[in-house]
Amino acid sequence: MRQIKVETSHPYEILIEGGLLTEVPEDLKALSLGYRYAIISDSNVSELLGGDLKRLLEEVGLKSELFVFQAGEASKNMDTVVKLARAMVRAGFDRKCALIALGGGVTGDVAGFLASIYLRGIPYVQIPTTLLAQVDSSVGGKTGVDLPEGKNLLGTFYQPWRVYIDYGVLATLPFEHLKNGLAEVVKYGCIASPELFQFLEENASALLNYDASALEHIIFESCRIKADIVSRDEKEGGLRRILNFGHTLGHAIEAAANYEILHGFCVSIGMVAAARLSEELGLAQRDLSTPLEALLRKLGLPVRIPKELDPAKIEAHLRADKKVWRGKLVFVLLKEIGAPVFYEEPPKELIRKIIDSLRTEDAFS
Amino acid sequence: MRQIKVETSHPYEILIEGGLLTEVPEDLKALSLGYRYAIISDSNVSELLGGDLKRLLEEVGLKSELFVFQAGEASKNMDTVVKLARAMVRAGFDRKCALIALGGGVTGDVAGFLASIYLRGIPYVQIPTTLLAQVDSSVGGKTGVDLPEGKNLLGTFYQPWRVYIDYGVLATLPFEHLKNGLAEVVKYGCIASPELFQFLEENASALLNYDASALEHIIFESCRIKADIVSRDEKEGGLRRILNFGHTLGHAIEAAANYEILHGFCVSIGMVAAARLSEELGLAQRDLSTPLEALLRKLGLPVRIPKELDPAKIEAHLRADKKVWRGKLVFVLLKEIGAPVFYEEPPKELIRKIIDSLRTEDAFS
Repeated sequence: MRQIKVETSHPYEILIEGGLLTEVPEDLKALSLGYRYAIISDSNVSELLGGDLKRLLEEVGLKSELFVFQAGEASKNMDTVVKLARAMVRAGFDRKCALIALGGGVTGDVAGFLASIYLRGIPYVQIPTTLLAQVDSSVGGKTGVDLPEGKNLLGTFYQPWRVYIDYGVLATLPFEHLKNGLAEVVKYGCIASPELFQFLEENASALLNYDASALEHIIFESCRIKADIVSRDEKEGGLRRILNFGHTLGHAIEAAANYEILHGFCVSIGMVAAARLSEELGLAQRDLSTPLEALLRKLGLPVRIPKELDPAKIEAHLRADKKVWRGKLVFVLLKEIGAPVFYEEPPKELIRKIIDSLRTEDAFS
Repeated sequence: MRQIKVETSHPYEILIEGGLLTEVPEDLKALSLGYRYAIISDSNVSELLGGDLKRLLEEVGLKSELFVFQAGEASKNMDTVVKLARAMVRAGFDRKCALIALGGGVTGDVAGFLASIYLRGIPYVQIPTTLLAQVDSSVGGKTGVDLPEGKNLLGTFYQPWRVYIDYGVLATLPFEHLKNGLAEVVKYGCIASPELFQFLEENASALLNYDASALEHIIFESCRIKADIVSRDEKEGGLRRILNFGHTLGHAIEAAANYEILHGFCVSIGMVAAARLSEELGLAQRDLSTPLEALLRKLGLPVRIPKELDPAKIEAHLRADKKVWRGKLVFVLLKEIGAPVFYEEPPKELIRKIIDSLRTEDAFS
């Protein structure tokens, strides 16, 4: 097992191991966060793992109840939070209870937010079940839901008491979800670790075959990098925003595609665009986009913008992005792999030029 | 002007003065919490003070916008929070903006909660306009909304950056609201200050005539006591619960009356019941309820349970109260004025006996 200690307002540990799910109950018992647990899960994950977890908890004498919401991004709203809260109240969950977020990114965001506001806050732990959630959303304490006006507009910073990462569950999910998470791992390499970048280059096919030791390594490194950044900037004052590498244009593509392209896929394209922008602006010290594109292709990730997306629509979403700070559009760019810089307001024409140059029929070619 | 420093996760100051409202803009400008302010207010208070505040802010060059919700306890729900948030997003409020809660307890709870979750938290200040809010809900950082299943079930602990208490605005509100707040002041005397209790006895009629220096004194003392308790127990671990004196039965009466009796009035009756319970259990060192009842009567507050309320209904709400911790009903009782004690599970029969003995046609007699 690998462990990472995250130094936030209350410090907590991330545990990483294949098959960890079966060890959760004994550890939870030792942590003693509550006398009863609310397992929050979506309709897909609860089918696969919810019943198992409840049974495992029972075996060590921990009481729990499963609260399920409809799977999908569309459930990430206040209505879901209120429905879950009401069900918990009716089931008698009080302040001495705790919550378990079991699932992907949406579940982590919704359940973490619910834990942060339920009776003004109860303890919770995360059991992320997708690679994306394991390397990204389960670290950092960001919780939240969407409004019709935009994503993640209501939420809290609320750190979990423990994060349990069992990469053994990844093989039970669609292959696309593995690649979706790998895009974020590439991001960590780009912003903080040439070694991780190189490891991905050398182990791409092992990873795509769910090789346990390769997965453990990249999850550990990703969480370590994110935890380090978050420890130094818990409330997103500045530094933490380097985590947005690839996300500025990535989010705009995601929105322009009505969220029908996976998040990691959009980030993948966004990273290529950011690398090219770094080159065009003369920030990059050498050719950046070639090795980046090669790695992303190796991992089966898209590197081009699908032609059917309207560039004007992408630009409109770009400006509406939350990263517009007092009217300024801030990109995270790279001097080289492992060396990020903030860049304010690149010329519109240049952004358009890069978007145009990336549009093709086949985003993966 | 009087000032109190509250030592919570981020320390903040409570400023107390008649006419303080006109000094808010300059102080806010110096605090520099945001480049634009969202004033959250209900339909009553926005009519009385909202436009004035907006104009005063403009005079010193601060941009603001007024967001109004329907006055009344029924608005204290997630729907109101979401509507206000959506309006703020559409009006372009970003993370560099701040929020002003202008109004009574409901406004403070709703606006404070909104500030705590809007874009994962923006700074806010409180301008409480009722005596109850001035001495109670504006200190301590409790925010929240109700669910159909119960009150304050969703919320956060989120401290304001400043609290402005202008007791000059109290005379613009109905007289009942003054008495409503005085009940909470009596509570502070009971749990922490025989001097405050005595001051109330000696200045009852001055207070009921809105005497400025008497109001300033009791507001200062109440906030000082609450701030002291909150500083020592920000997240309601234990000590803070002494603030529930009179509230255990008070809440049950409030609920049994479908919230048609003012909160402070219910607390007044609840304090009498708690004093009698302290006597019956042999905790009180001497006759407690006689001076307490006399003071409450002097202040025009009810001391008896209205006969039309069903005792069985009160008892049912009592057991459903949030203060039931893992099945235990905890009362705050008194050894004497200024000396509170926690008491677990007083005999049911005794509670019933006290409820019965307090029921009359005229709650004020």
